[in-house]
Amino acid sequence: MVFVGVDGGATKTLAVSADARGNIIGVGESGPSNYHVVGLDGAVRNINDSVKQSLAPVKMEVADVVTLGLAGMDTRHDFEVFEREAVNRILGRKVFVRHDAEIALVGATRGEPGVIVIAGTGSVAGARNRRGEYARCGGWGYVVGDEGSAYFLGREALRAVLWAYDGRGEQTVLTEKVMEALGISSPDEIVRKVYVEKMSVHEIARLAPLVTEAAKSGDKVASSIVREAARHLALHVIALVKKLGMEGEQPIKVATVGGVFRAGEVIIKPFKSFLEKRYSVEIVEPEFPPAIGALLLSYMLSGIEVSEEIVENIRRSYPKHRLYA
Amino acid sequence: MVFVGVDGGATKTLAVSADARGNIIGVGESGPSNYHVVGLDGAVRNINDSVKQSLAPVKMEVADVVTLGLAGMDTRHDFEVFEREAVNRILGRKVFVRHDAEIALVGATRGEPGVIVIAGTGSVAGARNRRGEYARCGGWGYVVGDEGSAYFLGREALRAVLWAYDGRGEQTVLTEKVMEALGISSPDEIVRKVYVEKMSVHEIARLAPLVTEAAKSGDKVASSIVREAARHLALHVIALVKKLGMEGEQPIKVATVGGVFRAGEVIIKPFKSFLEKRYSVEIVEPEFPPAIGALLLSYMLSGIEVSEEIVENIRRSYPKHRLYA
Repeated sequence: MVFVGVDGGATKTLAVSADARGNIIGVGESGPSNYHVVGLDGAVRNINDSVKQSLAPVKMEVADVVTLGLAGMDTRHDFEVFEREAVNRILGRKVFVRHDAEIALVGATRGEPGVIVIAGTGSVAGARNRRGEYARCGGWGYVVGDEGSAYFLGREALRAVLWAYDGRGEQTVLTEKVMEALGISSPDEIVRKVYVEKMSVHEIARLAPLVTEAAKSGDKVASSIVREAARHLALHVIALVKKLGMEGEQPIKVATVGGVFRAGEVIIKPFKSFLEKRYSVEIVEPEFPPAIGALLLSYMLSGIEVSEEIVENIRRSYPKHRLYA
Repeated sequence: MVFVGVDGGATKTLAVSADARGNIIGVGESGPSNYHVVGLDGAVRNINDSVKQSLAPVKMEVADVVTLGLAGMDTRHDFEVFEREAVNRILGRKVFVRHDAEIALVGATRGEPGVIVIAGTGSVAGARNRRGEYARCGGWGYVVGDEGSAYFLGREALRAVLWAYDGRGEQTVLTEKVMEALGISSPDEIVRKVYVEKMSVHEIARLAPLVTEAAKSGDKVASSIVREAARHLALHVIALVKKLGMEGEQPIKVATVGGVFRAGEVIIKPFKSFLEKRYSVEIVEPEFPPAIGALLLSYMLSGIEVSEEIVENIRRSYPKHRLYA
């Protein structure tokens, strides 16, 4: 039996194949498989390409079980479309389709129940309870979601600079930092940067470190933005714990992933403290990357317990395949 | 002496000419004069076109004083560019360039000191104190500003529906109302509407009446969004009163303009109550439209007092010219 896990993102797709005991056979890498980005045919092609590469060492064409963790599977409609028009073309006898946050969670906690909060350019959270039920929260994009993300931090920084300028907000070191970063000489030129030069979501998100740095240096306005981000990220967790009835599973494992959390204690401390008002939580560093999470799900969804042996075999064998390359 | 006021917007330009005593000579209408939309040459052409039309009844080519209230004059840079490259081509011996909220304010209070809050698709506020000093607040656009606008209300409604759906927020009648308005069958399809079908700022702003209606019917979530909008609009006023030192000018005239305020008491009551915690205020309906505000500024900036006679003459003579047509 060969099991495959696929981490399909908006820029690339990673596949990892293993035998029933966690010994990794091969890995594969190809282009994007977010079907909103490359279409259904493009997604199928890139997924199969990465799966084939991962199977090459054993000269197989089709895996027994494939679990796809796909970016862009944001609505029920996305799942319906993908299941109806793409799944039967994937090179697996049995194929499972999952939200990308779910495979990230399973990788992070190596299959144990818990919550994952991903705060990169955007933000989203996912949780699995003891019964294997999954739910997501957030991830609704930069216009109507992504609270607590790097984009959120960057946008609030721009707003804070304008508020200090027009008299609605307190003075902040962000004014100087943001003006320097954008190469402008007056706060109101933010308007030109944002609307005329059309600053992208990524460019705005790239301002996030200025905010966390300013917060570390004691700037009140920046601190309050970072605390607000932390509160939003905690609200994602609280909603999921409630939705999945995980109150009885304390301490709750909470895996934190993404650039925003890499700012360290300045965000993690308030995040944790919001949660600790309600639950006993354990903040964990992710153990495995999302593709391994998808592989673990392939076992779990086939009724195979993720034993210590499997975990040890993966730990031992996956770095050789340069999955992070 | 002929005085002209010009209201130059992103979709059209209105000009109104009058003699020194407020007797309106003529009006003119032409295309956009926001230079970000039509360029400097386009703006000059449309402004002059409308000015010429307004002067046609007296067969003049050049007015004595022209005051332009222009949309898109958001930064110091905008004023510098316009003053340097466009002003000398305008058909007036003396030309003043002003932010469009300033002419709206002067029209609304017929030249008296006060504050104007404009909450349409976007939001912005402007104030003039007793000494004729002007300042603006807000109006930084839908990405980093426009708090309390119709866009703000619409976007918060979408957010509230998604929050109720993913467990972060309370249930609300907005879910049903928004789904019906967007023609979708599940809240998560908002994501498709916003990002795949790329709902415009105007389309999002068009959801605002659903929020004010839901608030009127007692929906808690909608009420809290509307109160938050009212708080933001009040914060604009507070910043301006502080900035211009208008505390000594109480009661402060506050003119409310734009579609959001047309929702009535549901927004005006909390707006007023936020302000009344600090000042004695008088909420006023605008007396004159912005083009007349620009005309009044032409008098004021020429050292002519806006007398009762001038106001009476304008009142009597401008409706004949169908300025609102």
